[in-house]
Amino acid sequence: MQASELQNRFEHIRANKWFEAFVVSVIVISALLVGAKTYELPAGFGSVTLVLDWFISAFFLTEITIRFLAERKKRHFFKSFWNWFDTLIVIISLIPADDAELAVIARLVRVFRVLRMISIIPELRILLVSLVKALPQLGYVMLLMFIIFYIYAAIGSTLFEDINPVLWGDITISLLTLFRVMTFEDWTDVMYETMEVYPLSWVYYLTFIFFTAFAFLNMVIGIVVNVMERENEKARAEKAALLKAEKEAEGYREVTLELLMSELQTIKAKIDHKEK
Amino acid sequence: MQASELQNRFEHIRANKWFEAFVVSVIVISALLVGAKTYELPAGFGSVTLVLDWFISAFFLTEITIRFLAERKKRHFFKSFWNWFDTLIVIISLIPADDAELAVIARLVRVFRVLRMISIIPELRILLVSLVKALPQLGYVMLLMFIIFYIYAAIGSTLFEDINPVLWGDITISLLTLFRVMTFEDWTDVMYETMEVYPLSWVYYLTFIFFTAFAFLNMVIGIVVNVMERENEKARAEKAALLKAEKEAEGYREVTLELLMSELQTIKAKIDHKEK
Amino acid sequence: MQASELQNRFEHIRANKWFEAFVVSVIVISALLVGAKTYELPAGFGSVTLVLDWFISAFFLTEITIRFLAERKKRHFFKSFWNWFDTLIVIISLIPADDAELAVIARLVRVFRVLRMISIIPELRILLVSLVKALPQLGYVMLLMFIIFYIYAAIGSTLFEDINPVLWGDITISLLTLFRVMTFEDWTDVMYETMEVYPLSWVYYLTFIFFTAFAFLNMVIGIVVNVMERENEKARAEKAALLKAEKEAEGYREVTLELLMSELQTIKAKIDHKEK
Amino acid sequence: MQASELQNRFEHIRANKWFEAFVVSVIVISALLVGAKTYELPAGFGSVTLVLDWFISAFFLTEITIRFLAERKKRHFFKSFWNWFDTLIVIISLIPADDAELAVIARLVRVFRVLRMISIIPELRILLVSLVKALPQLGYVMLLMFIIFYIYAAIGSTLFEDINPVLWGDITISLLTLFRVMTFEDWTDVMYETMEVYPLSWVYYLTFIFFTAFAFLNMVIGIVVNVMERENEKARAEKAALLKAEKEAEGYREVTLELLMSELQTIKAKIDHKEK
Repeated sequence: MQASELQNRFEHIRANKWFEAFVVSVIVISALLVGAKTYELPAGFGSVTLVLDWFISAFFLTEITIRFLAERKKRHFFKSFWNWFDTLIVIISLIPADDAELAVIARLVRVFRVLRMISIIPELRILLVSLVKALPQLGYVMLLMFIIFYIYAAIGSTLFEDINPVLWGDITISLLTLFRVMTFEDWTDVMYETMEVYPLSWVYYLTFIFFTAFAFLNMVIGIVVNVMERENEKARAEKAALLKAEKEAEGYREVTLELLMSELQTIKAKIDHKEK
Repeated sequence: MQASELQNRFEHIRANKWFEAFVVSVIVISALLVGAKTYELPAGFGSVTLVLDWFISAFFLTEITIRFLAERKKRHFFKSFWNWFDTLIVIISLIPADDAELAVIARLVRVFRVLRMISIIPELRILLVSLVKALPQLGYVMLLMFIIFYIYAAIGSTLFEDINPVLWGDITISLLTLFRVMTFEDWTDVMYETMEVYPLSWVYYLTFIFFTAFAFLNMVIGIVVNVMERENEKARAEKAALLKAEKEAEGYREVTLELLMSELQTIKAKIDHKEK
Repeated sequence: MQASELQNRFEHIRANKWFEAFVVSVIVISALLVGAKTYELPAGFGSVTLVLDWFISAFFLTEITIRFLAERKKRHFFKSFWNWFDTLIVIISLIPADDAELAVIARLVRVFRVLRMISIIPELRILLVSLVKALPQLGYVMLLMFIIFYIYAAIGSTLFEDINPVLWGDITISLLTLFRVMTFEDWTDVMYETMEVYPLSWVYYLTFIFFTAFAFLNMVIGIVVNVMERENEKARAEKAALLKAEKEAEGYREVTLELLMSELQTIKAKIDHKEK
Repeated sequence: MQASELQNRFEHIRANKWFEAFVVSVIVISALLVGAKTYELPAGFGSVTLVLDWFISAFFLTEITIRFLAERKKRHFFKSFWNWFDTLIVIISLIPADDAELAVIARLVRVFRVLRMISIIPELRILLVSLVKALPQLGYVMLLMFIIFYIYAAIGSTLFEDINPVLWGDITISLLTLFRVMTFEDWTDVMYETMEVYPLSWVYYLTFIFFTAFAFLNMVIGIVVNVMERENEKARAEKAALLKAEKEAEGYREVTLELLMSELQTIKAKIDHKEK
């Protein structure tokens, strides 16, 4: 009885508009606090931020506990990705960090509390889910692009390693250099350097730019077409509903025509009958 | 009576084609004057530009007064955003600026008179309104992008502050640096600097570029889909009109079929009646 | 009689496949010649290129003359933009250039003979015409973009002139600097320089980038929507033809129904008549 | 008999799931080996990679032989582009390379074994084929772009050769410099240099950027429109099928109406007959 009463009270709190608004404002404050700490603050603020940090941690823990207790079936709580997400962020930011080394890590972990902004705003959650869902469709284009990168990086670090080991030392560094070339970031400096040894190495860069640009273009077009297809699918569904309604109307007309025919046949039969 | 006569005269002036053309040419002259002042002009031109400036201010004041007086219901004048816009620009550029400090500000304010070009050309007004209307739809993607920027800026200014305070001093500067990275502007210079201390910091830059590029791509696609939907909406409205016309034609046919049926039944009844 | 015979012969030449192929190959040779001249050639080639140049000029003159004479109505020749285009290029490249100063200009003029490639290949001509036709639709977005550029250039050359006159000397130079900023070309160098005097000047650059990027995006979307509308127009035309055919079929059915009705009424009248 | 048995066994091997998985893993290992060689490996690994290289070459040779023998009609084997592709890669990587000079080439050739990843994964094969198929449609835009590049390169190397022969030495170098300008890579450095001699040379760069950007935009739009048309084609085919079904239904109704009419005429005739 009492447990059920508590349950109801927790559900009440969770659904309360003011509670939700308070959660959002605490998240915003924690985000601002993260930002504020990057400035050089007067000595007095040190303890203020410490207290605030402690309060935010405690509040987040309370909030997640309320949400857990408000759930009637505890198992359902762990079925939601976002509950796992929130719990993880809260637990990680509870880890104490006294060490100077760990202090930096502790500050970084607190940054991720800003991510709770995404889990608390439903529109952002939907947006993120739809972004993540769009990724697998790009899988094969990404794989093709990686193969292009890999082959060029292998060639690059084989041929250009002695020219500039900082840029072409091994295949990982070469991949980074090629990504730089793809973003057109001082790519001619990279090219002019290797052209002094291999005057034809511009072919390497130009073909690489063409291949990646072309694959990238296809990726973008792939997404656009995908979005369009979903739109067309909707349009088609609407049209199918319209067509079904029309089909029914037509069916009605056909039945009417058949009735007319049978009526006529009855009349003819009657006339024939009278004649006899 | 006389008031009404004046009213008519003002309305006449406002609607006059030559008056409109004159207003546009004065705006163009004021724009050219703003441009001319950035060149080093011979001494004699100083007084010429002063006179012209005075004339343009006086003319704009007159024009806005005429437009105000030409309005039958004075309240309607203030309902239009563009009237507020024009009045504000005219009033601001009337503020006298004798001080040397203020002289620069006065010159800047006069630059904004060029904006009247937008309020006077209806097509530009429509374009601007449609641009502004497209913004709110991007709201959540912008928010998501800002959260990404904020988290990376907080991480950046925590980890890299000691490496280069000019780029990573506090969260505001870090946001600016990240915007620079997003535009690929010498981003490798920024990266190579931090890679000397944290050799794995390329992960930071690459994930940032991937996230923002992906969010940006979605923003663009969002706009395109939006525009497409509006287009489809129009097409659907047209089709609906067509369908309605067709429905009516079909309705007519159905009524005809029913009339045919009742006719047939009358005939049958008559034949039956005669038989008896 | 003889004139008409000549006319026919010229028309024959113009329509000849081999003649066309020869014209194309001469244009290609003239393009290669232009390219070859940029290399340092051995002394002997000087006279070869001179002879080739002379031959190409003579051939182009001959070809345009044949095309002019082959035209039955001489006025029609000057109605085509491409004939004017070809004639102009040929005439300009005939101007003698003995002077050293003029020699460079003469070489440049010969470069434009490469443009005849466009006038001779119909697909390129169509492509160029469709590109040019797409321009006016962008008119107002271009104007809006120019207004944004102009206002920012006026502000820039007012505020930043003393910081770096090379970049912000007058409004023309400022426009060029802003175009550079729009292409993200070392834009942070420009910004960091002015931020030393005006620490908030990053607002100037960021708002400028946002405005132009947004206007540019709209321009691109404008073109895409335009292309899509043309596509939809085609689809609609097809559908209209289909609908018309269907309408006619329906009209036929309605007429049949009306005939049925009149038939029935005749029958009823006959039955009524018999009853009397 | 025995030959046919062997044939079956080979077909069996080729179709075996485990064999396929093994081929993929050998390709992945060969790719990793190529990457590993770019690192400085401890002396002991030298012989390991040598053995692995030998094993991979032998395995690829065996695999291609099995696939060849498994083919019932040997001619069919050479009809597939991908079989040629694989055979070529295998044969090239079999060429012995003892010479120090050739060792680099041998390593490069082994890089291309990574390309077998594309031939073994059907989705990548389809993707690549569709990319290659999209190319010819861009043919004329590419040609137009090349003509623009060629004309500007000819002008550039004529006018700017003496200013900076490294950038504008001959037409090939100028084409490379223009490609650099198109990617906005330090293009203002190139421009400022020539503007010192020809103050109006910014016109050259800005018109070039506008032309190429516009042509590029058209290329992208061309691809998008192309993709859309294919989509619409599909939609149209679906609709045509629907319309055909509807046409048949209508045809049925028309036949019914005609039957009704003939029935009525029979009745009328009978009534007329009786009257007589």
